[in-house]
Amino acid sequence: MPRPSHRTKILAEGLRVVHEHGFGGSSVRDIVQAAGVPQGSFTNHFVSKEAFGLEIIELHFVGIRELMRVTLCNDLRPPLERLRAYLDANIEQISLNHTKNGCLLGNFAVEASDHSEAIRLRLVEIFAEAQRCIAYCLEAAVQSSELPSSIDCDKIARFILTSMQGAVLLAKTQRDPAPIEGFKSVLFSMVLRQPLPN
Amino acid sequence: MPRPSHRTKILAEGLRVVHEHGFGGSSVRDIVQAAGVPQGSFTNHFVSKEAFGLEIIELHFVGIRELMRVTLCNDLRPPLERLRAYLDANIEQISLNHTKNGCLLGNFAVEASDHSEAIRLRLVEIFAEAQRCIAYCLEAAVQSSELPSSIDCDKIARFILTSMQGAVLLAKTQRDPAPIEGFKSVLFSMVLRQPLPN
Repeated sequence: MPRPSHRTKILAEGLRVVHEHGFGGSSVRDIVQAAGVPQGSFTNHFVSKEAFGLEIIELHFVGIRELMRVTLCNDLRPPLERLRAYLDANIEQISLNHTKNGCLLGNFAVEASDHSEAIRLRLVEIFAEAQRCIAYCLEAAVQSSELPSSIDCDKIARFILTSMQGAVLLAKTQRDPAPIEGFKSVLFSMVLRQPLPN
Repeated sequence: MPRPSHRTKILAEGLRVVHEHGFGGSSVRDIVQAAGVPQGSFTNHFVSKEAFGLEIIELHFVGIRELMRVTLCNDLRPPLERLRAYLDANIEQISLNHTKNGCLLGNFAVEASDHSEAIRLRLVEIFAEAQRCIAYCLEAAVQSSELPSSIDCDKIARFILTSMQGAVLLAKTQRDPAPIEGFKSVLFSMVLRQPLPN
């Protein structure tokens, strides 16, 4: 197996450091130290910290897109089961590291969207893609009569996306995934009006 | 009228600068420049940037507490009208400065809760106080039969607090208050099952 390049190490370790300590809270020095590479290799591989930020957002989004593919957009499973699986996988992810990290995209939205228009615009696109996947899943639930046809799938999809971000923010603050569990419970019982699962 | 002290200027202008550019994104230099005071006066009045951060959180919370007093906790108005007024005032606040600032408390939760345990714990208390005020309003709505007695007021209060934070985060990212309007619409029509207002 070939050794990982400095660039790969910086991206993998940089993603981990920034997710835990924030983009503003992680210096280039912190990142290269975590990656175990010389400081100069950062500037060899990234024209700016903003360019590095955009790359770790893409790297993180690879995992999110794969999760959406096997849950929300997976036509082989019943639609509301896909939505539950998507939320449960999010809860599991958020609960890592003592519920300290939050959502990388939400963190960037707060921290970096004032300082980098490129990062802000990329986040808007990514949130829109996630919202479309949730809407696709809700539309499938309407098609299969799991949800009533009166439901506005786009509106509920945006509501799920935004409320999830807030629940993750509170979970991060409280170091406790309970706000996300609470959101999921209200979503299924009161918004989607589903009976409690067995 | 006496001239405002350096301390007062630093707090007032510092709150404005940090709300717009973030706590990490605002240096002490940015803050004293905005306040028009010498750099040394910051260290004269605040033992650390963390201590300054805690003070602007309190200063900001004075306004939030007053808003909660005249809306959520105001027994002279019908309960759900109080909840609507509280959300509308939030939407109005968030829409200032091209929907760029977000919620100061949510921003601190993302940015500073990793770096300062004192700030994180104060935010947990403040969010709990806001949640109690929302629950108080919902309980009043149950008492006056605006909501059914089957509703779990604490659970819905937490849901409103967290979802609101997420809607504000998306509004900040998109520079558009639409996610908060969308949340309010889903809350009243699907969670609280209220008829559309005239």
